[in-house]
Amino acid sequence: MLRYLNRLHFNQCQISTVFLSRSFSRSPVSRKEDSLTVCNQDKGIRRIILNNPKKRNALSLDMLNAIKANLLHNLDNELRVIILSANGPVFSSGHDLKELSEERSTEYHQQVFHRCTEVMTLIQDIPYPVIAQVNGLATAAGCQLVASCDIAVASEKSQFATPGVNIGLFCSTPGVALSRAVPRKVAMEMLLTGHPISSQEALIHGLLSKVVAEDSLGDEVNKIATKICETSQPVVAIGKGCFYSQVAMNRDDAYSQAGAVMVENLKLSDGKEGIKAFLEKRKPIWSHKTDCH
Amino acid sequence: MLRYLNRLHFNQCQISTVFLSRSFSRSPVSRKEDSLTVCNQDKGIRRIILNNPKKRNALSLDMLNAIKANLLHNLDNELRVIILSANGPVFSSGHDLKELSEERSTEYHQQVFHRCTEVMTLIQDIPYPVIAQVNGLATAAGCQLVASCDIAVASEKSQFATPGVNIGLFCSTPGVALSRAVPRKVAMEMLLTGHPISSQEALIHGLLSKVVAEDSLGDEVNKIATKICETSQPVVAIGKGCFYSQVAMNRDDAYSQAGAVMVENLKLSDGKEGIKAFLEKRKPIWSHKTDCH
Amino acid sequence: MLRYLNRLHFNQCQISTVFLSRSFSRSPVSRKEDSLTVCNQDKGIRRIILNNPKKRNALSLDMLNAIKANLLHNLDNELRVIILSANGPVFSSGHDLKELSEERSTEYHQQVFHRCTEVMTLIQDIPYPVIAQVNGLATAAGCQLVASCDIAVASEKSQFATPGVNIGLFCSTPGVALSRAVPRKVAMEMLLTGHPISSQEALIHGLLSKVVAEDSLGDEVNKIATKICETSQPVVAIGKGCFYSQVAMNRDDAYSQAGAVMVENLKLSDGKEGIKAFLEKRKPIWSHKTDCH
Repeated sequence: MLRYLNRLHFNQCQISTVFLSRSFSRSPVSRKEDSLTVCNQDKGIRRIILNNPKKRNALSLDMLNAIKANLLHNLDNELRVIILSANGPVFSSGHDLKELSEERSTEYHQQVFHRCTEVMTLIQDIPYPVIAQVNGLATAAGCQLVASCDIAVASEKSQFATPGVNIGLFCSTPGVALSRAVPRKVAMEMLLTGHPISSQEALIHGLLSKVVAEDSLGDEVNKIATKICETSQPVVAIGKGCFYSQVAMNRDDAYSQAGAVMVENLKLSDGKEGIKAFLEKRKPIWSHKTDCH
Repeated sequence: MLRYLNRLHFNQCQISTVFLSRSFSRSPVSRKEDSLTVCNQDKGIRRIILNNPKKRNALSLDMLNAIKANLLHNLDNELRVIILSANGPVFSSGHDLKELSEERSTEYHQQVFHRCTEVMTLIQDIPYPVIAQVNGLATAAGCQLVASCDIAVASEKSQFATPGVNIGLFCSTPGVALSRAVPRKVAMEMLLTGHPISSQEALIHGLLSKVVAEDSLGDEVNKIATKICETSQPVVAIGKGCFYSQVAMNRDDAYSQAGAVMVENLKLSDGKEGIKAFLEKRKPIWSHKTDCH
Repeated sequence: MLRYLNRLHFNQCQISTVFLSRSFSRSPVSRKEDSLTVCNQDKGIRRIILNNPKKRNALSLDMLNAIKANLLHNLDNELRVIILSANGPVFSSGHDLKELSEERSTEYHQQVFHRCTEVMTLIQDIPYPVIAQVNGLATAAGCQLVASCDIAVASEKSQFATPGVNIGLFCSTPGVALSRAVPRKVAMEMLLTGHPISSQEALIHGLLSKVVAEDSLGDEVNKIATKICETSQPVVAIGKGCFYSQVAMNRDDAYSQAGAVMVENLKLSDGKEGIKAFLEKRKPIWSHKTDCH
């Protein structure tokens, strides 16, 4: 179990309730106006908002750095869940194509894809649920971002596409996340034609967890986030870690691992408290501690 | 092929058409009234009915033992298909939490999860199709039970949830079956929030094979079971065995195995008879024999 | 990347715009009337039409040879996309059961399944998108053929089934393709009962990319094929190759491979041209060359 809790060696130090982020390469002084992302945290819920609507929230190297910093910043006992949303009509249009032109070196291109993969996998490896809140168009690596989140809620008008093939750059890396979220023929049609799918299609095929009216989007995501805040952090951490680990295994290895995780879960203070409270017909009081006495 | 037919070394001895089961640890004398399960068999169809509605058909160690015994009891030439249903408004609420409290030892907890995994994998490894007939709520390991069956038919009012996170015990083992049945984001939302999904949602996402009105549930399941009874047992056995074996392989290995299984299937008496009857435009007469002369 | 482009060592020689095929074992002289398939190519779109409606387009060894030949014939710079359709009310009924009777040797049976697997995997390994255009019933290996295509569009009246179990030959090889296209419980119900599913069910579960009215089927498929013709061939080739390769890997290996493919994609002439054209707000002009200067 500690494998899951500690695998990323997160620093659990300072507590911060509101913070903004910029890219690592910029000045540490950041004004809200020109931040690539806006990030704040309240009552356990961290909101990371892509904030470059003029550039359609392109996942430039700076933007990827900002998201990574926002995800990893002050991982503390207060944090319970992360919401990823965006300002403007486009959730994200994917890579900044200026960064992928031949003016830039192959080494630079490699760095962009490397950082992008880091962010996408970090979302799944971080021991906190990450919810995508999508209101608009998500394309290419922007679609990959949605596919990589644990939960994804979108407004009815949202659309999803992987149109890289149209500009000579097949969405091969977005395909990694997409093909693990939706059936293959759905993924292949999207990748080969670039055609967008609607929220409703994305829901039926598993890319989204829920579709709601645009007016209700914020409320719906808050409701899910609040529900997660009522659970025990270390319990969620081992559950999420176990899920992504077992899903790639064969069935028998998966059960062997998950069975061991269940037993470890019961040794957690919160594991014991949860069962006790249930049997005593009362609400559990979580310690959120990872000790197993 | 013999690998599939014999892999579980089932005893094919006595024939029994009606039997009741209790846990192994109890007295062998069992009265129908206090049986954890009711089990009977008629015309090749074995019905295992969870029969502890007061305890919401909890999967206690005794209940798991009873199901295991019912699955393995008198595997004979008469058996063609198994139907798993439940008495009462709850199909199954999952583990008996009293057995997972800190009063019980870690060794006991391990035994519970071990037995549970045994039952869930046995359902898939046994060379007979197992159909879940669900009319009500299936939660946690109860939901896992539905996910583990080969075919699952539910009434419209049924619901499915993995709410362990709410009582501090993440549904990690149910997640193994769930994540192999539905898209990942559907599974993750269910596991992280404990929210139930409706029969209709379960159908769209692959957890169910069919949803019918409550009144038609029995008839629909009988129709499917009767259809399976009209087929050849060893043909079904090698088909089911090959399916779960190949699904975990890469495509080329899967084809290599399945191609060999097809050739062996044709060597079976019933394989030859089926093709012959088709070409002669008559109904096949199955021997249900595993000989390959 | 060259791995994907060259893995099948396709000959890129003669250009042919219309050609018919017969089995390899027949005379090279072929008249359209008695061809098992009709094959023609125009403006980059190759159409392979199963043309044995009296035999329900059975996938006899000759038919499989014809499809294989049609897929591999004159792979040239003109070819962009392949459409697989059928004449008559049945798309394909699967294997020719006369070839699987006991009159034929085990070696012959092995040859049939071997050739069938070759065709099914070739469809996915060939560096051109293959679209199934289905108007009618697709059963057994005929259903496998649909499941194996990259994209599948069907008319509303079409149906899909794997009924081998009814004639004593479980659809184990069709199950390989089916279980990689639809959820397991959907596949298992189809395989164990032989029940057909409708186009709409096939769409929801991922077996199809799109369902349209019978009148619009040709137009819809043409639209998709034309869209693919507007993209760069080598870009599509590396994208398709990467997709099927990464989908069988664990996530981290998949990203490692796909990231490298993205960088190689950018080195292609058409990769550079695509990005350049996008930044210059003009339509790209593809060279379709695999050089990487």
